[in-house]
Amino acid sequence: MAEGASQDLLLAAAFVSDAQYNRNIPFKTSPEAVRLYYLYNHWIMRTATYFFIFLNLSLAVFEEPAVYPLPFLVTSLVEVLCLLVFFGRLTHFAKVTLRNVFWKDTKNICIMVAILLSLTDLAIYGVLRLYNMRSIRWSRIVRPIFLINFAESRQIRRAFRSIRNTLPEITYVFLLFMFSLLMFSLMALKLFGDRNLQTAEGLPYFRNYLEIVFDLYVLVTTANSPDVMMPAFDFSSWYALFFIAFVIVNTYIFMSLFLAVVYNNYKKHLKNEIRKLAYMKHRKMIEAFNLLKEEEGAQFVVREARWKQLVKLVAPDISNSHRELLLRISDDEQKGFIDKKSFVQLADLLNIQVITLKIRSHPLGQWMPRVYQSAVSRFLRSMVRHRGFVWTYDAIILINAIFIALDEETPYISYAEWVFLALYIIEILLKVYTYEPRAFFGKNQFWNWFDTLIIFAALTATVLNTTLKSTTKYNSQQILDIVFILRVLRLIRIVDSIQRFRVIMNTLINIVPTMLTFGGLTLVVYCVFAIIGMELFHGKIQFFPANSNAPHALECGNPALKDSLFARGKYCKNNFNNFASSFIVLMELTVVNQWHDILCGGRSKLELALSPLTPIILFANGFANVTVQPAKLYFIAFHIVMVIIIVNIFVSFILEAFFVEYSLEKSEVETAIEQKIQELGMGVQEDELQDEQLLDNMESAEHNLEGEGGTKPQSKGLVFKIASKRYRTVDALLQRMFEAEIPLEDEVPSFEEILNLSPTPAVPSSLISESAA
Amino acid sequence: MAEGASQDLLLAAAFVSDAQYNRNIPFKTSPEAVRLYYLYNHWIMRTATYFFIFLNLSLAVFEEPAVYPLPFLVTSLVEVLCLLVFFGRLTHFAKVTLRNVFWKDTKNICIMVAILLSLTDLAIYGVLRLYNMRSIRWSRIVRPIFLINFAESRQIRRAFRSIRNTLPEITYVFLLFMFSLLMFSLMALKLFGDRNLQTAEGLPYFRNYLEIVFDLYVLVTTANSPDVMMPAFDFSSWYALFFIAFVIVNTYIFMSLFLAVVYNNYKKHLKNEIRKLAYMKHRKMIEAFNLLKEEEGAQFVVREARWKQLVKLVAPDISNSHRELLLRISDDEQKGFIDKKSFVQLADLLNIQVITLKIRSHPLGQWMPRVYQSAVSRFLRSMVRHRGFVWTYDAIILINAIFIALDEETPYISYAEWVFLALYIIEILLKVYTYEPRAFFGKNQFWNWFDTLIIFAALTATVLNTTLKSTTKYNSQQILDIVFILRVLRLIRIVDSIQRFRVIMNTLINIVPTMLTFGGLTLVVYCVFAIIGMELFHGKIQFFPANSNAPHALECGNPALKDSLFARGKYCKNNFNNFASSFIVLMELTVVNQWHDILCGGRSKLELALSPLTPIILFANGFANVTVQPAKLYFIAFHIVMVIIIVNIFVSFILEAFFVEYSLEKSEVETAIEQKIQELGMGVQEDELQDEQLLDNMESAEHNLEGEGGTKPQSKGLVFKIASKRYRTVDALLQRMFEAEIPLEDEVPSFEEILNLSPTPAVPSSLISESAA
Repeated sequence: MAEGASQDLLLAAAFVSDAQYNRNIPFKTSPEAVRLYYLYNHWIMRTATYFFIFLNLSLAVFEEPAVYPLPFLVTSLVEVLCLLVFFGRLTHFAKVTLRNVFWKDTKNICIMVAILLSLTDLAIYGVLRLYNMRSIRWSRIVRPIFLINFAESRQIRRAFRSIRNTLPEITYVFLLFMFSLLMFSLMALKLFGDRNLQTAEGLPYFRNYLEIVFDLYVLVTTANSPDVMMPAFDFSSWYALFFIAFVIVNTYIFMSLFLAVVYNNYKKHLKNEIRKLAYMKHRKMIEAFNLLKEEEGAQFVVREARWKQLVKLVAPDISNSHRELLLRISDDEQKGFIDKKSFVQLADLLNIQVITLKIRSHPLGQWMPRVYQSAVSRFLRSMVRHRGFVWTYDAIILINAIFIALDEETPYISYAEWVFLALYIIEILLKVYTYEPRAFFGKNQFWNWFDTLIIFAALTATVLNTTLKSTTKYNSQQILDIVFILRVLRLIRIVDSIQRFRVIMNTLINIVPTMLTFGGLTLVVYCVFAIIGMELFHGKIQFFPANSNAPHALECGNPALKDSLFARGKYCKNNFNNFASSFIVLMELTVVNQWHDILCGGRSKLELALSPLTPIILFANGFANVTVQPAKLYFIAFHIVMVIIIVNIFVSFILEAFFVEYSLEKSEVETAIEQKIQELGMGVQEDELQDEQLLDNMESAEHNLEGEGGTKPQSKGLVFKIASKRYRTVDALLQRMFEAEIPLEDEVPSFEEILNLSPTPAVPSSLISESAA
Repeated sequence: MAEGASQDLLLAAAFVSDAQYNRNIPFKTSPEAVRLYYLYNHWIMRTATYFFIFLNLSLAVFEEPAVYPLPFLVTSLVEVLCLLVFFGRLTHFAKVTLRNVFWKDTKNICIMVAILLSLTDLAIYGVLRLYNMRSIRWSRIVRPIFLINFAESRQIRRAFRSIRNTLPEITYVFLLFMFSLLMFSLMALKLFGDRNLQTAEGLPYFRNYLEIVFDLYVLVTTANSPDVMMPAFDFSSWYALFFIAFVIVNTYIFMSLFLAVVYNNYKKHLKNEIRKLAYMKHRKMIEAFNLLKEEEGAQFVVREARWKQLVKLVAPDISNSHRELLLRISDDEQKGFIDKKSFVQLADLLNIQVITLKIRSHPLGQWMPRVYQSAVSRFLRSMVRHRGFVWTYDAIILINAIFIALDEETPYISYAEWVFLALYIIEILLKVYTYEPRAFFGKNQFWNWFDTLIIFAALTATVLNTTLKSTTKYNSQQILDIVFILRVLRLIRIVDSIQRFRVIMNTLINIVPTMLTFGGLTLVVYCVFAIIGMELFHGKIQFFPANSNAPHALECGNPALKDSLFARGKYCKNNFNNFASSFIVLMELTVVNQWHDILCGGRSKLELALSPLTPIILFANGFANVTVQPAKLYFIAFHIVMVIIIVNIFVSFILEAFFVEYSLEKSEVETAIEQKIQELGMGVQEDELQDEQLLDNMESAEHNLEGEGGTKPQSKGLVFKIASKRYRTVDALLQRMFEAEIPLEDEVPSFEEILNLSPTPAVPSSLISESAA
């Protein structure tokens, strides 16, 4: 932070920065609190918090049952350290924020309770361990709470809130779905129960009501289709109608209905949250304005000098020319001050990625102009700029693809690999030679960065592998794998050559950061289920390498699985023995299929007769009197949480994001900026242009400026463009998603009112709430 | 049609009727053409056309390979008859419509070509048959063209147009998806190809590039997860990351992207179509107005008398009071004429279901007032109206459910069934006794009809079964099945007792008619694939009953399937031997799962080593040199068409329909009608009320009218209500879906312009079209 800045300015900068990043910290306005606030939001502090959250979560890898076992003393010390850090962070937050706000916020309470629970559990477990008594580390399932509840992970928390808000409506549809399932099961019992039918394994078919319910639930996920139908179908073709009706009603209609309800609610609540954020942002900008305002004629304004100081504080890393541009937009008529309306826009202005392209002649052109401007050099550069250059390299990529598919062992082909690598390196060098290097490696030149990184990583890995091979006569498997992957990744470049593919790819790349939220969400759910799964099913199934001599190696270490399809299908590695395996099993269950197999282990197909004790019963051994139900319940619960709720929210999000990406037009603020850029004669068209075209344009723009004369001296050698459709923050994208639909009134409600906003009636009232009307 | 109506009136009525049902027949205005037009749209003609279309389609059941074989002569004669009918219908249409419009319409050309092709093929096949040469009846796949192209099936045609319009955009995403698939396969080949890994069946794992592509394509559908992963996963846990990345990219992101593209385009094009229809309707109403207008002061109007004649012609089946209501709405100030603006609304007015409830005293009350008004009778009726009555019957239904789940054979339980039946019949009788029968069985009393039909069908079936049993000592299986189903269906009633469930159920019921469109669409796709499938794979696999002595009965009649899992899993009945079986197999393939099994037959799991000749190779036997590819291609093609396109469009439709149903508020026209109804003091609130409440309300309304005196004599004993959210036509629902978004300008474009409308720029420009901008 700048040293000489006044207290007011520091406070205003805090407000603006809060508004820019949509943070929601109602901080105290005392000088000390503002200083602590800056410290709280410092990137080092934030990164450290994330580091300790993930360290805490990753403890599961080292604790029993461990992937890499560590002594209990080590893991418990690390956990205590993590908890201390969390407590420190919370205390820091308490000092920044207002006391009554702090104690009202459930997330702070949650963190405190989680810390206390973890410590208590750790203490009890430690003491019991001293006396050699084993107990369950039940507090481990509260660890994801830290990931959810620390202020930095706002997106994940929002997604969770969104789920919580959707639950009541989902519940009614779910009950109706269950009702339909129970009805169909009853029908199935009446229709098939007395027929003495047998499944393919020779087991009684559809005799027990609960088993029918379970089988039909599995049919909804389509995992046991058509097996579950065949006995009835063989008996009479007409019975197929029953299953067709079942699939249409339950799989197609109800599952679509779930998606519809989730999507509808997700959108409704997200819109409300975003509206809150927008109000909050507006409010904060006004607070900042009030701190800095001076009287000028009939109105209050912020003077240019203070404004510049403010922007320097808030965004220290933007260039002078960029700041100048923002000033020109805010102070349209160059009056030397900024009025309230323009000032409030500042947070949005700062969020728009304006790329400053400095038109500089090539460094080589400066160092050795004679060589760089020579005929050969000019020819070379025009060649690189030619369309044919791109086509040639596309052809090379295609040939490369064929070579990759061919056998590696033939020496000519492994030599060819060197040739291709050389060709790619030459391409990059030529491009850097032709285009200005700083422009070539500009922030937004995703593909240039991608290419260069891939090629140089491949070069390094290949050289490393060859060195290893020549010295130790032995390929390193890991390095070879990486080389293979890098080689194939190089081919992705070809997508970039085709305009339409590039558009789709850009859309995909743009929503990646927002998708990470769902990564976090999935992580939380997986962690909880993995920890529960490990407690329930740990050690029931074991994996041995192919040539193991261990007893029962072929039966997953469990004699009860002898001859089961589970073991013969080599599913043994799908177990809950450690954190990593659990994650993989949960991933498989998310992908839905064969979960029937995993769940029922040997029960599938022919093998059940051979092995009546299936892993499901093994899974349940931990429980005394119950047999099959806990494992079934565990898997059904996971299916409901993960597939019905989270995957649907994920799909909702992707749908919404794509619709927005498809239809997004420039927002008002962006258009204003672009207009101003154009007015100032410093613009280039869009960023959809090819790199070459872009750089060509830059040169022509430079030309024009020089040609038209120096009316705009400050803009010479400088062009701006808006990185359209790239957003600094996830919230900015979300805000754009609903911008049109959320009208911002002039009157801004108070902080309290903002926090208590509920979905507006203007938003389509939901199925449930409109009920009785 | 009314005899004395003038030519102008007839023509105007034709226009209005066209507008009301959104028909798109640019008919000639000659008297003869109008008469033919009425004949063309007569319900008998339309039903007959549908009948012959389905007769033509169902020929596949009787032709070789037949479910119920009929001689070739019979089927060919029927086919010729159908074709003649189609030709007649087309000729009729040609006489109604303008010549140049007729020949410009591709659907007419399609029908003609289809008729010609069918006749040619039939002739060739017949001749070859005389010489005992077998040929392929290839023209059978053109039969669905009749279903698509006859003017009556506008919805299906629209869905097809929607698919055609979506194809270009889907194609680019599909290519990118294929690219991703090929890249991942290449990576898999490099990573796993040289590891000498084996699948659980002991087969080489991931050695052949094309097989990897196919395996990974199947993994996208999640059908072979986690089998396809296990060998690599067993080798090293890290390889799981490869499959996780694959599933995230291809299954989750690309499949969501498909849904997003389909949904976006579906909505865009549908909106355009609906806009066309809306313009067309407006235009037709203006034509009708121009035919009937008379001068009245400064403006042109339609006089009341003519208007009434018109309405009588257009909607002969609406009641006088309803017509009077419409007149009161159109002629708001009772001036004796209707102006242009109100006249144009007529088509929409006619589409709104206004229910005329005649408040009559109970017929029993009229026949024997003493008995009906006695204390006992009054008590009985108040009891039936009491909430407790509903609750009692809900309890009875629950007890009934338990009894159904119990064993049938115990005599007490089968007696109990009679008791329940009696209880339900008593309930219906009591309700009819209490409420006015004509109101109880009103058009919109879905649940009353449902109850009564179910109960009386159950009664009939049970009596029939008992009679059969007592005379022949033998249960009829079919009747018993029906009884079981009816018994369980009765339980659905309980849903209706819970407000929130009823709302969801009503939403579901409301979109059923629109879903039938997708039934049609699916029928067309299934027909085409079934006919191709029968030609390719007929007779390769056969089904024998369990105790058959036929050779190879256990191997599906094919020695090559010996010991295959396909046969042992009793999948033999999944074959392409006749039309019905083909449909079932295609249904199973639609439900996606295990299609890998069906496709690969014996290849799955352990059995391949035992049976190297799998059905996939059998399937392909028909082809000389090719081995596995045709069958694989057939199944992949079906998966792309059905799952990627049609199921996505279906889901899009359900999503959209649910959003509309969730958020639908009353349209302007409906509100106007309701206002008028309320003004006239003839209204009841909403139709969400319980039946009891509704009928109670009716009585009180009657009371009020009598009490307040006879200021509105014509309305006495009569109430109207709007059947909210029920639409006469699918188009009306669709129009409502986009009503808000389609502004109708006053200037209506000409017919030509309307037909050439394209999606507006206001509609979010799609991913592809915005590309280069």
